[in-house]
Amino acid sequence: MKILFAIDSFKGSLGSIEAGAAAAEGARRVFPDADCVVRPLADGGEGTVDALCEGLGGERRTVSVTGPAGRPVDATYGIVGDLAIMEMAQAAGLTLVPASERNPMRATTFGVGEMIADAVSRGCRRFIVGIGGSATNDGGAGMLQALGFRLLDAAGGDIPRGGEGLASLARIERQGALPALADCAFRVACDVANPLCGPDGASAVFGPQKGATPEMVTALDAALARFASVAHGAPDVPGSGAAGGLGFAFREFLGATLARGVDIVLDETRFEEAVREADLVVTGEGRLDAQTVMGKAPIGVAQAAKRFGKKVIAFSGCVTPEARCVNAHGIDAFFPILRGVPPLEAALDRAAARENLIATAEQVFRCFRLGAH
Amino acid sequence: MKILFAIDSFKGSLGSIEAGAAAAEGARRVFPDADCVVRPLADGGEGTVDALCEGLGGERRTVSVTGPAGRPVDATYGIVGDLAIMEMAQAAGLTLVPASERNPMRATTFGVGEMIADAVSRGCRRFIVGIGGSATNDGGAGMLQALGFRLLDAAGGDIPRGGEGLASLARIERQGALPALADCAFRVACDVANPLCGPDGASAVFGPQKGATPEMVTALDAALARFASVAHGAPDVPGSGAAGGLGFAFREFLGATLARGVDIVLDETRFEEAVREADLVVTGEGRLDAQTVMGKAPIGVAQAAKRFGKKVIAFSGCVTPEARCVNAHGIDAFFPILRGVPPLEAALDRAAARENLIATAEQVFRCFRLGAH
Repeated sequence: MKILFAIDSFKGSLGSIEAGAAAAEGARRVFPDADCVVRPLADGGEGTVDALCEGLGGERRTVSVTGPAGRPVDATYGIVGDLAIMEMAQAAGLTLVPASERNPMRATTFGVGEMIADAVSRGCRRFIVGIGGSATNDGGAGMLQALGFRLLDAAGGDIPRGGEGLASLARIERQGALPALADCAFRVACDVANPLCGPDGASAVFGPQKGATPEMVTALDAALARFASVAHGAPDVPGSGAAGGLGFAFREFLGATLARGVDIVLDETRFEEAVREADLVVTGEGRLDAQTVMGKAPIGVAQAAKRFGKKVIAFSGCVTPEARCVNAHGIDAFFPILRGVPPLEAALDRAAARENLIATAEQVFRCFRLGAH
Repeated sequence: MKILFAIDSFKGSLGSIEAGAAAAEGARRVFPDADCVVRPLADGGEGTVDALCEGLGGERRTVSVTGPAGRPVDATYGIVGDLAIMEMAQAAGLTLVPASERNPMRATTFGVGEMIADAVSRGCRRFIVGIGGSATNDGGAGMLQALGFRLLDAAGGDIPRGGEGLASLARIERQGALPALADCAFRVACDVANPLCGPDGASAVFGPQKGATPEMVTALDAALARFASVAHGAPDVPGSGAAGGLGFAFREFLGATLARGVDIVLDETRFEEAVREADLVVTGEGRLDAQTVMGKAPIGVAQAAKRFGKKVIAFSGCVTPEARCVNAHGIDAFFPILRGVPPLEAALDRAAARENLIATAEQVFRCFRLGAH
């Protein structure tokens, strides 16, 4: 029997590979001869760099870049051969800025461009970039500037950083951009389908949570529209409005493809090849709830598995009553790994989580075997 | 498919029948055509009256009897036809006496006899009596007195109640005993094998937790030895020392058989007949831990099921790391019903427990089905 394990990290306790290994250990207690294959799983958000670095045998690199509010921040990304794995939030995330200092008019993605440039200088030519949780609303202008694009006002000067700077954008010079970008392929993990502008756009939908007042939303929306116009871009392509319009810049200037994070991860890890040979697929994440079916990683795994008619079991740190809806999306059965009634801190403890997952997996595989005989 | 459910109560949340019905509801969500049979399960301790009354269609009766400390207490027992189901603790339990008032020299089982006499007067001729958790060390003398036996001192007077009264016991008159007792059959649920006297006896082992000082233990042990001698009984039969020697009185004077509580319950509910026809047996209890294998109800179920080669799944409110040992005792796989990380109060909430059990059972049966196809 061949069992394929691809479990997203249990945020706060187990990493993706740790979780897969623990579930595999439980499985081997029941099926000692099973061929257990553990693959990394992530959804493009937090944990993606760790999962792919560990699962694919890469290394992590930390660089100092310009943070969203202008101060330097340490940003970590992963390198596996010529592949760079990045989380935008490391360089321009909302959590990098104290609530009192959030200002989407000024916040910049400059550090994202610096992080990419660093990876390019180290030989990376393929990029996976997760773009959830940004503090910015600058349409990716800062990233482009850091990569050598020039965004100029009518007088020929560089526009200021931040979304408000785009209001004075008159033209864009592409010839100064890093030459190696021409050889780079970008895949952007993006779980939203918003356009760049308008009532469903970046400013109106995501601006307020970044600190934008109604007046700022109006100004930022107009600035992004100007950016799209000057760039002769297609602002209505779904995902253009992701991460304050960063999706737009990636697509228009770097030739990026936008896709669900989990699909990019499954593609990079050649999940489909592995699933063809598996008799059973095991997935999971820290919490299974109504959100899980909205394109989160375990559902991506389940859908890929079901294309080949495979059985799918999921584990999670906890589940909500609404989690049952995952049964209709390819997860044949799911199990929380809680064993007793611990305080929350104990439930998040790494060693306890690992033991709980092993023990739960063991009983689940015993039940699976029971059905088979 | 025929599935037999026999789950002990989840103390503090679900009764036995409620738990069985919830697990069956989860099973039917997966196997709508399954024949789900729910039987009551108990171990002779707390919950036994409720489980058998509800499971066998009986009624509960509450009577005022003499409590262990002499004050009246309300004692509830169950009646199903000519069967009475009693928990000794209702009339002579340790929890009926405040810690400051505990006195095993004086505590009496008189109320147990009154409860039996009440049931006899209502036509009961078969008795199941669980005898865990007594406050008494009187060898069952009080019970016998309440049933009309006369325990006399050398002067021909009735000895005082309580273990210390037995020190003056000179002879026993049986002719005053309730005549209907001759037609009664008693089965006593007793999970300990202690003899009446000596270092492993009632006084030495259980006396201290009832408030006995070392001097009291010596006096009580001698008093029980005198009782055995005057009664010409066999104080070394295992279980004689249960409940302060109540096991001795039941066996010697009422012809009772002593057995594991779960075995009595399984016998009374004709469990063996049901298990022969079942394809799968589902059991469980509030907590699965290292104690579970020590003759608790789910292990009794599992052992009975395994005599016929049946598959056994167990559910519990929570499990400890040591619970895994139940796998070696007939429980093929077990599952805690916790879903999230609730505060303990919420975990004990009846409605939440029921929903959690249904939801867990559903996923377990999905997994079972998955193995089968």
